[in-house]
Amino acid sequence: MEPVKRYKKEGGYSYTLGPFPTFELLDTRPELVQAVFCHPSFTDKAHLQARCAALSLPCEENAKQLARLSDKENCYVAAVFSKYQEALLPEKDHVVLVNPSDMGNLGTILRTLAAFGLGDLALVEPCADPFHPKAVRASMGALFRTRVARFPSFEDYRAQYPQRDFFPFLLDGARSLTLADCPASPRYSLIFGNESSGLPPAFSQVGQSIFIPQSNAVDSLNLSIAVALGGFAFTQRNPR
Amino acid sequence: MEPVKRYKKEGGYSYTLGPFPTFELLDTRPELVQAVFCHPSFTDKAHLQARCAALSLPCEENAKQLARLSDKENCYVAAVFSKYQEALLPEKDHVVLVNPSDMGNLGTILRTLAAFGLGDLALVEPCADPFHPKAVRASMGALFRTRVARFPSFEDYRAQYPQRDFFPFLLDGARSLTLADCPASPRYSLIFGNESSGLPPAFSQVGQSIFIPQSNAVDSLNLSIAVALGGFAFTQRNPR
Repeated sequence: MEPVKRYKKEGGYSYTLGPFPTFELLDTRPELVQAVFCHPSFTDKAHLQARCAALSLPCEENAKQLARLSDKENCYVAAVFSKYQEALLPEKDHVVLVNPSDMGNLGTILRTLAAFGLGDLALVEPCADPFHPKAVRASMGALFRTRVARFPSFEDYRAQYPQRDFFPFLLDGARSLTLADCPASPRYSLIFGNESSGLPPAFSQVGQSIFIPQSNAVDSLNLSIAVALGGFAFTQRNPR
Repeated sequence: MEPVKRYKKEGGYSYTLGPFPTFELLDTRPELVQAVFCHPSFTDKAHLQARCAALSLPCEENAKQLARLSDKENCYVAAVFSKYQEALLPEKDHVVLVNPSDMGNLGTILRTLAAFGLGDLALVEPCADPFHPKAVRASMGALFRTRVARFPSFEDYRAQYPQRDFFPFLLDGARSLTLADCPASPRYSLIFGNESSGLPPAFSQVGQSIFIPQSNAVDSLNLSIAVALGGFAFTQRNPR
């Protein structure tokens, strides 16, 4: 194939950098893979080549291509994949991020949701690009195990998925998230705002607002931490 | 004073970058402040100058100095402070990080612990530098609200603080962390390993090992996420 260029948000492909997300891609969405590159001195080369051969995918030794894709010098394996769009499953629990701006946070959140078995993530635009190689890397490849859909506004999301309980997380949320009293729900959406500004106050009228107990010593919790605490409590309280 | 140079791990001072950690420093540990710099066009300059005047601290307009301290271009305020050492309080609950390597994680953890009222953090060396400006910034200044002490080994820590329950977090931990059954303890230490390698297996013999329920879809949780989940559950189960 032609040399792969550096990532573009508007482009049709992205890539995994590093062994873990690359193997995750091969395991979960091999049909998307356009190319696999490895460094001649990649220690796990035999394993990678065997995996690619089983999938009838070429695996090219190409140090120059790896250096071009990666900011960091020590990238020994990468795979190019086609970006995709996917609808969320209406019968599943969702997490909704309104205007998340940090790709590292987004990746960490994808990884955490996969750990809790939450497989459906809605992103309200403008938002960080979940396909950016930095987000893919921070997710450790958990992106490929998650249905991710983007929406122009929260109203668009709600119109498409109306039959569920909405739990917006707000610093002045009406109900505290506690071990003893996490809400029960047959189907829910946990909703979180931007890293700096949080959710707009109007979200207090969208379902049951939730506050994560925290001292006045901090401004707020990091977004990925807030999502993890919400996901932990709700999945434990509402096993499926 | 002489021009402040870029951060050195071995040096006696560090600095806050940005308004939030700088105001946190002024509010919590003004006696450590060596100098405060602001950009001529800093929007909150009057507030900063009043705060410094009340503390009898000089506040210098110095765009050149700010550019020298900061990697990012848009840093409008910074304060230089003396590094310090502090013993943990033996009567308090602790968090122990064994060989944490990522400064961003360390900062996020400091911020999260402050949110939960956990004020004592032990670091087992080698470890990321909690005074590095990147860690200070990621902590949003929560570093200054936390007692942080370093130990050459976990055994050194344990010898100094023996009278407590130890809870090492391990992927094969014997007890699952759940909403319904978080351990009660009159005084505890929550112990977490390195981002990549976790705790050495021998830690399963150090107290009651804990597993955070998670699917096989991921390798593990991000360290800052694991610490947040442990801190959330234990502080709620054991209010002081």
